Amino acid sequence: MRYPGFTCALALALCAVAAGAAAQSIDDLRKDGTQAGNIATYGMGWSQQRYSPLRQINTENVQRLVPVWNLSLNHSANASTQPLLVNGTMYISLHDATVAVDALTGRQMWRTPVKLPADINAYLCCGIQSRGMAMLDGVLYRTTIDAHVVALNAADGKVVWTKQAADYHNGYSMTHAPLIAGNVLITGISGGEYGARGFLDAWDLKTGEQKWHRWTTAAPGEKGGDTWGPGKYETGGATTWLTGTYDPDLDLVYWGTGNGSPWNAAARGGDSLYIGSVLALRPSTGEIVWHYQFSPGDPYDYDGTNELVLGELPMGGRPTKVLMQANRNGFFYVLDRTNGKLLSATPFVRKMTWAKGVDMATGRPIDTELTAMVRKTEQMTSAVEVWPSAFGGKNWMPMSFDPQRRVAYFNTLNLGMKVKYVQQPRPPQPTWYLGLELEGFVPPEDGMRGALVAWDPATGKKLWEAPSKAPYWAGVVSTAGGLVFTGAQTGEFMAFDAKTGKKLWQFQTGSGISGLPIVWERNGKQYVTVTSGAATVYGALAGDPELANVVPGSSLWTFALQ
Amino acid sequence: MRYPGFTCALALALCAVAAGAAAQSIDDLRKDGTQAGNIATYGMGWSQQRYSPLRQINTENVQRLVPVWNLSLNHSANASTQPLLVNGTMYISLHDATVAVDALTGRQMWRTPVKLPADINAYLCCGIQSRGMAMLDGVLYRTTIDAHVVALNAADGKVVWTKQAADYHNGYSMTHAPLIAGNVLITGISGGEYGARGFLDAWDLKTGEQKWHRWTTAAPGEKGGDTWGPGKYETGGATTWLTGTYDPDLDLVYWGTGNGSPWNAAARGGDSLYIGSVLALRPSTGEIVWHYQFSPGDPYDYDGTNELVLGELPMGGRPTKVLMQANRNGFFYVLDRTNGKLLSATPFVRKMTWAKGVDMATGRPIDTELTAMVRKTEQMTSAVEVWPSAFGGKNWMPMSFDPQRRVAYFNTLNLGMKVKYVQQPRPPQPTWYLGLELEGFVPPEDGMRGALVAWDPATGKKLWEAPSKAPYWAGVVSTAGGLVFTGAQTGEFMAFDAKTGKKLWQFQTGSGISGLPIVWERNGKQYVTVTSGAATVYGALAGDPELANVVPGSSLWTFALQ
Repeated sequence: MRYPGFTCALALALCAVAAGAAAQSIDDLRKDGTQAGNIATYGMGWSQQRYSPLRQINTENVQRLVPVWNLSLNHSANASTQPLLVNGTMYISLHDATVAVDALTGRQMWRTPVKLPADINAYLCCGIQSRGMAMLDGVLYRTTIDAHVVALNAADGKVVWTKQAADYHNGYSMTHAPLIAGNVLITGISGGEYGARGFLDAWDLKTGEQKWHRWTTAAPGEKGGDTWGPGKYETGGATTWLTGTYDPDLDLVYWGTGNGSPWNAAARGGDSLYIGSVLALRPSTGEIVWHYQFSPGDPYDYDGTNELVLGELPMGGRPTKVLMQANRNGFFYVLDRTNGKLLSATPFVRKMTWAKGVDMATGRPIDTELTAMVRKTEQMTSAVEVWPSAFGGKNWMPMSFDPQRRVAYFNTLNLGMKVKYVQQPRPPQPTWYLGLELEGFVPPEDGMRGALVAWDPATGKKLWEAPSKAPYWAGVVSTAGGLVFTGAQTGEFMAFDAKTGKKLWQFQTGSGISGLPIVWERNGKQYVTVTSGAATVYGALAGDPELANVVPGSSLWTFALQ
Repeated sequence: MRYPGFTCALALALCAVAAGAAAQSIDDLRKDGTQAGNIATYGMGWSQQRYSPLRQINTENVQRLVPVWNLSLNHSANASTQPLLVNGTMYISLHDATVAVDALTGRQMWRTPVKLPADINAYLCCGIQSRGMAMLDGVLYRTTIDAHVVALNAADGKVVWTKQAADYHNGYSMTHAPLIAGNVLITGISGGEYGARGFLDAWDLKTGEQKWHRWTTAAPGEKGGDTWGPGKYETGGATTWLTGTYDPDLDLVYWGTGNGSPWNAAARGGDSLYIGSVLALRPSTGEIVWHYQFSPGDPYDYDGTNELVLGELPMGGRPTKVLMQANRNGFFYVLDRTNGKLLSATPFVRKMTWAKGVDMATGRPIDTELTAMVRKTEQMTSAVEVWPSAFGGKNWMPMSFDPQRRVAYFNTLNLGMKVKYVQQPRPPQPTWYLGLELEGFVPPEDGMRGALVAWDPATGKKLWEAPSKAPYWAGVVSTAGGLVFTGAQTGEFMAFDAKTGKKLWQFQTGSGISGLPIVWERNGKQYVTVTSGAATVYGALAGDPELANVVPGSSLWTFALQ
């Protein structure tokens, strides 16, 4: 439809708003991983593969990649977010605002502030951020660091509904993208360092009505209730601070659970179900269909929350629907996602002192003497050194999985820690409740604290690694053009050759990168977008000299071929 | 000198520091306008021509200009600064820090915070910023918004000396770059909206010892003392808030003076010397050798502080050493800088209602009836409309003068104001002392609130103009490549064809631009650098709808040909 004198070129903002509000259905979410024009899900598809079928930018021409626009995001906090893109409009969630941007020009269309209580910062553990959003039918869904779930009209940023998921005064917060699964919106919760008890919630998409609430630590009388010391489940952690994955064919949601609270395992007793696990849930009811515990009892803050990536792999000679996770504990896990059966667990870290392996019969890690001692020692007189550290062999920054090559690409860490376990009563909020003294991190002898790793999940073999002095703390995306994109905490946005790990291109974005890049196309042209602006928990705690002159300050970057 | 196993490539930071501290003499300052490798002066040369002899980037290839790096400057204030560049290191002054940057990579080398009192913001009139620095022999000189002058070691950012120029509690502040002239450092002062009395200071470069102090309002008994109502000179303004110009051959410093305080002319009486003037001073003594008053009595906040650009023009048939200023009052002035004689004064604004012209015999503006009435009316019952507004026909953002083409390029404003003059006793600090009610700004009928203008100063003719809805509020630089660079408050950094005014290239930098671009070369490659990040007085006061979705947040950009 075209009126004389009125074209979209002449009325760009108006047309873009109209397009942004256009139909975008549950079926679009199912296809999201394959629709290069839209990126409507956290993970670039329900499977969270973060893979793009686009090949216009490739290994031959990536040297011509240049910025095409920048947008200031105007804060000095952590811009570790994944943009969404629907019909030419980009949507960004920040801890302090939700922003809509014209994707071709970078001009801000609207910005809706997040109203936060004045004392909120005191209650936040690990970075002030918002990692992304869900979107359906012209409505954006996000969480806030004061533990609210908010729905906004994508056309104008007006709030449709707001629900409080928890009271932040009790150590709860939210930084992850919600997950649309079946016909509900599912959210988790953060707070594992404050003695918070984890849970998942489901909300009605239209009204925000709570559909179900599922605690993630087992109470007495429930299955797993006997894996806790008396009453310990009530402050036991197992928070659900990253976004789960949805398989619409199996109608199962997979959601990782975090560390035990306190970290001191002897103070909790037993396996502490369901800490350090993956839960497979029915989205309509919240029923736990199966679970697998990566780190029973977990004394090391290894969490189990890292992204759970769905794919199909030839396992034992037959194509298998798998769930993959590069766990903080240093093992790369492959599970049969139909039933939770462990198919493989292979160390991907250079150094591991906490476990000798995983018993494939029981699915349980095989403790080293160190870990056997740590599990039963609530109070120590001196620190022990553990590898990997509490940062894990890999932290939250999500991997990419190329379903064609069947290769996973992820950013790893190579650090130990010195830690002394001590008795600690649960302190009043907001104080960390760890039951230990973290005396420091131990760098590796060669100073390479991290690497981008290419991993064959079917065989459990490392294909290559690209080491870095300061570990990369950004998401990874791979493309059919044979490229792997990620960012450095020292500010470089980078493209690697997917086959060899050779760095082919980089651009200095001005601050550290902890964002989640997306690859997209519009009008036949391919783009790559990422946020810059890092204030990571690693930067705050690790004392990495490489980061001494990295400056906070957030902005949004889009690149294309010159 | 090269040791085995030690090269500058291997030890970049170290070499850069050593180079930054290398000899850079007073003679280098004299040549600064012609040395494309170094930019050691505010204005890209003592003459403040902001012209680069570089031609690698030109009208034919500017479409290939792309960002090569970005550095977050990490604040939401006004990044309206001109970088310096000496031996491969870039130096940036911000209101809250001084920063050194490796010019080829954009990596921060050091950052020295400016310690500011907690209540300082209440005492600042017009933007929180620092516009630039002076540099000599490895020492950087800057001012602070709490009215201090600071010398820093360029090698490591350590403070060499600090002197208080004034007490900020009395309405004084400093945002300009100091000027090295002769063997002293000269600084001015801001505060014209607070009833501050203007002055200039000279400081010993090595020790910071004050060499002289020159008030810029004339006291009773001095020449011009009779141009004030009784006692009014004490709070009379004539602040000196932008950087002056130095002619080393004539050994004269030219420094512009600001508005009268209060703006209400009838409340002051007379011409109020030396408000709205240019002073030619001897740098060794502070003696006023000559003066010219652009806006006697100035009821309109027209200031006289805009940059004073030195050049040689054919005036009356013979080459003449001139001083040029595009004054806020809307006239482009050309003076003989040897003696202060007015050579021409031509309106460059589209609309002017305050004056009919300038009397070439007396050098005085010819009042309209409006201005004649305003001058004698301390108290009005209703507002009058005046063009140009208090923002002026051109504000502080400095022009470029191409000495080859003999063309000036500058960003103009096209706004009126509605203002009602009222009696006001001087209020306690920090409250504006204007003697009027500013009821608002009047946009032009076509909505084009500003333009980049090319101006022939010898003939007083406008060669072209490139209009803009939101006026450009950035510095201008022109090059031998036939390009004119400037920035938009809506974020675009732009290159115009110097001959035609056609916009040839632009890049969206993420925030509004109020910075002062520089053009430079290193290892045979040409670069252009500019700060992005605007929180201008225009943005705060003008209510310009074009700026509604412009986001604060400062960063430093460097561009080169792809």
